[in-house]
Amino acid sequence: MQIDKSNFSEWYNTIIKDAELCDLRYGVKGFVVFMPWSVMTMKKMYDRYEEVLERNEHVPAWFPALIPESYFMKEADHVEGFAPEVMWVTEAGRNKLEEKLGMRPTSETAMYSMYSLWIHGVKDLPLKIYHPSQVWRYETKATKPFIRSREFYWIEAHDVFATEEQAMQQVREDMEMAEEVIHQKFGVPFLFFKRPQWDKFAGAVNTFAADTLMPDGRTLQLPSTHMLGQNFAKAFDVKFTDDDGESKYCWQTCYGPAISRIYAAVIATHGDEKGLVLPFDLAPVQIVIVPIIKGENTEKVMAKCLEVKEKFSQFKVKLDDSENTPGFKYNYWEMKGVPVRLEIGERDIESKSVMLVRRDMKAKVKVPEADLTNAIENASKEIQKNLVEKADEWFGKQLGKAKTMDELKAALDKQGFVRVPFCTDEMHGKECAEKVKEATHANMRGSLFGSKEKPKDEKCIACGKKAEIYLYAARQY
Amino acid sequence: MQIDKSNFSEWYNTIIKDAELCDLRYGVKGFVVFMPWSVMTMKKMYDRYEEVLERNEHVPAWFPALIPESYFMKEADHVEGFAPEVMWVTEAGRNKLEEKLGMRPTSETAMYSMYSLWIHGVKDLPLKIYHPSQVWRYETKATKPFIRSREFYWIEAHDVFATEEQAMQQVREDMEMAEEVIHQKFGVPFLFFKRPQWDKFAGAVNTFAADTLMPDGRTLQLPSTHMLGQNFAKAFDVKFTDDDGESKYCWQTCYGPAISRIYAAVIATHGDEKGLVLPFDLAPVQIVIVPIIKGENTEKVMAKCLEVKEKFSQFKVKLDDSENTPGFKYNYWEMKGVPVRLEIGERDIESKSVMLVRRDMKAKVKVPEADLTNAIENASKEIQKNLVEKADEWFGKQLGKAKTMDELKAALDKQGFVRVPFCTDEMHGKECAEKVKEATHANMRGSLFGSKEKPKDEKCIACGKKAEIYLYAARQY
Repeated sequence: MQIDKSNFSEWYNTIIKDAELCDLRYGVKGFVVFMPWSVMTMKKMYDRYEEVLERNEHVPAWFPALIPESYFMKEADHVEGFAPEVMWVTEAGRNKLEEKLGMRPTSETAMYSMYSLWIHGVKDLPLKIYHPSQVWRYETKATKPFIRSREFYWIEAHDVFATEEQAMQQVREDMEMAEEVIHQKFGVPFLFFKRPQWDKFAGAVNTFAADTLMPDGRTLQLPSTHMLGQNFAKAFDVKFTDDDGESKYCWQTCYGPAISRIYAAVIATHGDEKGLVLPFDLAPVQIVIVPIIKGENTEKVMAKCLEVKEKFSQFKVKLDDSENTPGFKYNYWEMKGVPVRLEIGERDIESKSVMLVRRDMKAKVKVPEADLTNAIENASKEIQKNLVEKADEWFGKQLGKAKTMDELKAALDKQGFVRVPFCTDEMHGKECAEKVKEATHANMRGSLFGSKEKPKDEKCIACGKKAEIYLYAARQY
Repeated sequence: MQIDKSNFSEWYNTIIKDAELCDLRYGVKGFVVFMPWSVMTMKKMYDRYEEVLERNEHVPAWFPALIPESYFMKEADHVEGFAPEVMWVTEAGRNKLEEKLGMRPTSETAMYSMYSLWIHGVKDLPLKIYHPSQVWRYETKATKPFIRSREFYWIEAHDVFATEEQAMQQVREDMEMAEEVIHQKFGVPFLFFKRPQWDKFAGAVNTFAADTLMPDGRTLQLPSTHMLGQNFAKAFDVKFTDDDGESKYCWQTCYGPAISRIYAAVIATHGDEKGLVLPFDLAPVQIVIVPIIKGENTEKVMAKCLEVKEKFSQFKVKLDDSENTPGFKYNYWEMKGVPVRLEIGERDIESKSVMLVRRDMKAKVKVPEADLTNAIENASKEIQKNLVEKADEWFGKQLGKAKTMDELKAALDKQGFVRVPFCTDEMHGKECAEKVKEATHANMRGSLFGSKEKPKDEKCIACGKKAEIYLYAARQY
């Protein structure tokens, strides 16, 4: 069976269902059940992200899922931004609660109320804590499994520093972690944009967000890292006594890789017409062995399959000894995205070889048994390299340019991110962004982080005034 | 500083605070903040439990935190048991919800509504799924960090079988996993009791619970495994078509190791008058290096310390290069429970040796540098062995016997579990249990699993009728 990826939305829904990643039939709207095949990979993704966070001196902590309403109220922009999405606990057992408790949509207000108790002097800084958790947001937009649901799985890291410079350095470290984990390990390319002021995180000074692209050219936001400045420090009284004896407000950052959403990007980036394609490291089953059995040779073939399985116990190996036909098994494990398939039949045993098939390639390769260890190790590396390269190659072609609304509309049909001259990314540019949205259905994702390009003698695509900045437009999930 | 463990409650609270395990100052009653030092260990505990669950063919899945009220209502005993403790979401954003959503106190009703969609035939069985998660119960009893709070961290495993026998075999496997993980790896001894009918899990046919003992002789329930029979299968229509073509209700079990509570048992079992004592495998820092610096030799000593640190990168090593005195550092890391301390000063460098101190022993041992690898590997094994043996030795003395209320009262002052002759563990024994509770403050924990002992010509300790069974009494947390 072939699933047409050019109809991305339909393709995606088919994969979710046929590869058994998610069940949408749970009885609460916007909540889904994450099924074993996706959870096994997402658990690995958590591990990989946490390893890198810990290498960068973060430590884990667990904060409560419930936040008192009064905590939310402390930072005015924050409460305004999140109030429409918070789910409230108002009863416990048979009693009404005195104060409403919000299910965390994000944990700034829960964590910083404690940070103000934990931080006293310079020796307490930097404080770098990550919390692997779920958050709940009562989305009003249409939900789509892994991409947007009312419950999602993420890590939030909340860091505190003595100086603005150190905080800005953390923002860059957050970006580097995204590059290492999401791009290099998971094979998902993205660009970091500095969001315009009208689209930043509620309470932040600046938001820097990693945007990837789905195969249909629409953008999906992956982790964002936020320079919070001293906004929350002032609201929550997060202060330290500096070496000069003065009490000063701290500088803060926060960072939120949503594992369940990054998983959506993994599906979308690598999958093909046969189903999921998983990076070797993330696959719940890395190698599937399919015995080719013909009547009386069953015992001999199964013995060899078992022998091979035992030999590669450092990998996750599945021997498919079900009663299905080999063809059925090929399709099944291709849909599941298993990176390496080994086929073993009587003829292979006679020629002391094994048939090796890589999920990301079409060709079957006959491998002498003696070379199998090497062949599998090479395959695991080659698959990783190939997936990253293929993704990068496509992504690299997705940057366009436009100077007028008509050019932008035309460009957006061909490319994901289109650079346009814009009057400003300050708050008063919002009106121009709304004009762009109306005319082209595209959002202004912001300026490309690290880019020094600046318009000269160009006009804002929306208002026609002098363009001060280049912003990138994209249609969005 | 010495902390007197014979006053257990005060000792426990001091450790929680001084080792920085938990912060009780969060703004919602019964909710605590789990601080990095405890979370690093509890994450390891999750890993260890999940490894064993997966070896026993469980796969992970993530189910929603919110359960519709209508799901709860499907199993009558279950809803009655949990209704007083459920926290309810009734509002989202600025809207009232049409149906109240309960924050999961346990996930039977969420999971089995899906199981009924997932299970069709024999090939779908057994289904063995675990969910690492938090649950929320609005406890009315006094809360105590890690031991009992309104939010706790656990794993729940929910398994489905074709036959009652297979389900009962799973109950035994659950017990074996507890033995391997909690006893052998974490060093916490316990006994499995079959709970009396009046104290079983709401909706179960039978509950088997692992009870450990705190140093004050009071019991704490660790994981319980429940034989659910077909109760939930009937309520949630979990059926399969058997090989004979007939549609049959499945047999189910569930199992719930509460990681945060098991952590309490680890603290209580191993800790001493200097603070935490952690098993080598669970310690966030396994080896701390304390440089012994005197003025001008700083550089030389620090270089050696760094060399040793690098050499043991397979362990979690902390080099304490702070400005505190060695004595301060000893106390600090002893409070934190770090299993191995290495002291390195100029004299040690000259004699090509290192001073090694085990947290679980008093003696300092001078180890030639060349033997250090061996010495550390041995220490890691010896510490584990010693902690388990010490715990077992104490626990082994905690079984008593009594035949009258007066004997029981006296025995409970000396031993944790006291065996008494009892009329029955069926529902109508509840009245007798209440009499015991009133007279001795002890609960009937049930009959010892696997024991064949039976009273002959004895009388129930409470009603004086013929005793049919031995039950164990214990004072409880």
